[in-house]
Amino acid sequence: MKKILLATTAVVLTAGASFAEVTIDGSAVFGLNYDDAAAVGTDKTTTLMETYLNFGAVVESDAGLTFGYNTTIATYSTAGGLNDDGTSVYMKGAFGKLTFGSVGEADEMAGGLSDIGLTGIGIDNVAEVRTGDSGSGLAHNVNYSHEVGALSFAVSTALGKSTAAVALVAATPGNAGTAAAAAAPNDSMAVGVKYTFGDYYVGLGYNDTNAATGIVTPRDGKNTSVYAGGKMGAFGVKAMYSKFSSETAAAADDVKAYGINMDYTTGAATISFAYADNDLAANTKASYGLGVSYDLGAGAAVVGGIGSVNGSTKAQMGVSFSF
Amino acid sequence: MKKILLATTAVVLTAGASFAEVTIDGSAVFGLNYDDAAAVGTDKTTTLMETYLNFGAVVESDAGLTFGYNTTIATYSTAGGLNDDGTSVYMKGAFGKLTFGSVGEADEMAGGLSDIGLTGIGIDNVAEVRTGDSGSGLAHNVNYSHEVGALSFAVSTALGKSTAAVALVAATPGNAGTAAAAAAPNDSMAVGVKYTFGDYYVGLGYNDTNAATGIVTPRDGKNTSVYAGGKMGAFGVKAMYSKFSSETAAAADDVKAYGINMDYTTGAATISFAYADNDLAANTKASYGLGVSYDLGAGAAVVGGIGSVNGSTKAQMGVSFSF
Amino acid sequence: MKKILLATTAVVLTAGASFAEVTIDGSAVFGLNYDDAAAVGTDKTTTLMETYLNFGAVVESDAGLTFGYNTTIATYSTAGGLNDDGTSVYMKGAFGKLTFGSVGEADEMAGGLSDIGLTGIGIDNVAEVRTGDSGSGLAHNVNYSHEVGALSFAVSTALGKSTAAVALVAATPGNAGTAAAAAAPNDSMAVGVKYTFGDYYVGLGYNDTNAATGIVTPRDGKNTSVYAGGKMGAFGVKAMYSKFSSETAAAADDVKAYGINMDYTTGAATISFAYADNDLAANTKASYGLGVSYDLGAGAAVVGGIGSVNGSTKAQMGVSFSF
Repeated sequence: MKKILLATTAVVLTAGASFAEVTIDGSAVFGLNYDDAAAVGTDKTTTLMETYLNFGAVVESDAGLTFGYNTTIATYSTAGGLNDDGTSVYMKGAFGKLTFGSVGEADEMAGGLSDIGLTGIGIDNVAEVRTGDSGSGLAHNVNYSHEVGALSFAVSTALGKSTAAVALVAATPGNAGTAAAAAAPNDSMAVGVKYTFGDYYVGLGYNDTNAATGIVTPRDGKNTSVYAGGKMGAFGVKAMYSKFSSETAAAADDVKAYGINMDYTTGAATISFAYADNDLAANTKASYGLGVSYDLGAGAAVVGGIGSVNGSTKAQMGVSFSF
Repeated sequence: MKKILLATTAVVLTAGASFAEVTIDGSAVFGLNYDDAAAVGTDKTTTLMETYLNFGAVVESDAGLTFGYNTTIATYSTAGGLNDDGTSVYMKGAFGKLTFGSVGEADEMAGGLSDIGLTGIGIDNVAEVRTGDSGSGLAHNVNYSHEVGALSFAVSTALGKSTAAVALVAATPGNAGTAAAAAAPNDSMAVGVKYTFGDYYVGLGYNDTNAATGIVTPRDGKNTSVYAGGKMGAFGVKAMYSKFSSETAAAADDVKAYGINMDYTTGAATISFAYADNDLAANTKASYGLGVSYDLGAGAAVVGGIGSVNGSTKAQMGVSFSF
Repeated sequence: MKKILLATTAVVLTAGASFAEVTIDGSAVFGLNYDDAAAVGTDKTTTLMETYLNFGAVVESDAGLTFGYNTTIATYSTAGGLNDDGTSVYMKGAFGKLTFGSVGEADEMAGGLSDIGLTGIGIDNVAEVRTGDSGSGLAHNVNYSHEVGALSFAVSTALGKSTAAVALVAATPGNAGTAAAAAAPNDSMAVGVKYTFGDYYVGLGYNDTNAATGIVTPRDGKNTSVYAGGKMGAFGVKAMYSKFSSETAAAADDVKAYGINMDYTTGAATISFAYADNDLAANTKASYGLGVSYDLGAGAAVVGGIGSVNGSTKAQMGVSFSF
């Protein structure tokens, strides 16, 4: 006995001034992934499949405050496995919006770059190598954002996070060790601002990361990023530049990274081009790619893309749909 | 294309005598947590966030029996992660209700205590230290309950659980070891009864736990608990007392634990007070706390609380909402 | 504020030629399991409980292609825990149906056997010991199926899977080791065909498995299986026979396996009988069992079964319901 959820474009629930609403939607992609740089013993061509099932709730209180909940249950491959792809809650009012949980880092609020392919071959990551939570253990968990006319801004931080007590030098007889409190806390903060004029925008982001010991990508420094983009009829463009100033001797020197996206829509087809580069020692070559998406209607599309990421050819081909 | 679920207070589904119904609802809290006794190297003030998404199904069979399913997908912090916060199934009829899965232990059926704060600072746990499944590995999985007029009662057990074969002494050459079968099974059972008269209730609980080797809180003994409470207009009260008689030499001596909750509602505000203590060696001081909840309507509230738990100051402040 | 999903038998959504639909349904069983061959220190009688909550989405594109998503969140015992019981996505059109993710292996498309009991005591597994993904790590992830009149066929494979780089001999100084690429890939493929005439069917399956090193049931060989069954009024029957030809010296010799199901429905009761055997060295005795299901209406039933699996008595008793 199936329960079918009604698709509605406008629902009026007038049970007084306050109400609660629950929504379900989602999306999926599947196809093939090619990676010229696949590890030895690993197939260069593999399946790709990602699914996202979203649950949302909005509660409108008598006081004019809005409370919300969002979660996404995801699978990242044909092998499945249920993953929390982000759960957040928020409170919204005349003061702005305060979000807890899986939040965006404020320095990326002006909008990062798009990628090429279905799940992405990774060109955008080259430009975003030092923005947002680019690296495990750096994700923020509190975000406050507000809009004043054409200007929107946000602040985010990793409040009370990464407080794992890591003793740098273990205590031994006669040696008290380096206290756990001395372990570098993930005491990071980011701010972002975006200004929109007509179909164009410019943005600025700043992220001060004081990375915790033991995270995958140790990072201690300040990153400043600028963003700009817009739409001119069928043509769209997005660009960003970021500069990271390291604060540790052990870490790599300063890093500059930049990238650009362009897309052109003609009929049901959208053609995309992406280019990005940074001056990390490990990134020896510029990355670029070309993609195409053909709209089938109802949220479905055929998508393909090919590119070169740090010198390796990568490609993706398949379909995407949303519901 | 969002699917919006209709909020209904009364739905009449008359597809014959039998039907199936699926429901979705949930709740969330978020705010700040303060713990004076936080471990060294850990922030005393951290974020707190918990979300609960509930799915339920009720099937009314031709035979007059009702079958049900309930599960809750939860996240317990801003870091997310999908957790099964309790999945249970039941069969209900004139004979009563039989539940399998994540069930309540019967000795707590008269109702445990409330806590102070959003997710709770832990005052209730001081009084409930020996009731229910207070300790990993002790949860029951089958519960039978019934109501006869003002009297309700329940029986629960951990049927076929905790049968992990733990060899007390591993086998070595020339020594057969202590057979796995000798490992103490989690052979526990509980009964509870509650009598309601007007706005008042009294209850009695009994829990015989024969804890499995290797659980977090080894426990082998019998616990008897008494409960009482009621509502007098805007004033409410709940109290409990429990006495645990140990059956092992290694375990702590007998434990007595007790607690009381009081709350008073005036307008949109509810003020709560909680007090609890037990005579465990590790619990040197009585615990108490004061909380307030301000109703915003539509299931949303601003909630705050502060208290002293075994001598450490703990506090929580934030919002809660349900949908 | 509960959100109740409407139960509908026919919904017409005519927002143009294209639409998206989301559905929720599920099922659950619970009761008791008896296993005469339970490990020492383990109870012979235990609870059994399984719950399945299904989410589905169908997107009908303008191009006449249908895209779909299905996932099942399951718990397998009273201890709970959220499990991905299978997530798949598909594209369907005049060309047939292409499915990615948790797909059926094509050699079993004609339909495997039924089991006795609520979750099954394992008689079918004796006959299906070499078909489909019978063994961890052998599951296919891509399936293409099509129907031409009474004839349906399918092809499936494990595309780009099991590419874990397992070094057969680890590298040591002066010895390059056996390259990871030499590890046997899970390069398996299966085909199946089914022909339906009236209430009867016959089917044929072929599965060529080149099992990856390190999986639970190493398998390298070819399996051919034949299927037949049908309904004669209240009487139903399903039978299968399979022959596995090993391609490794280390593996067991060829395996022949077969089984049969019969069921008879009278009023609300359905009586089932199952029989299966194979010539694996570890399977010394034929397996058989008898079951009964009593329909309570609305998708609920009382179910019981008892049998002998490789000489050990196993039984299950309880209820099942779907929603």
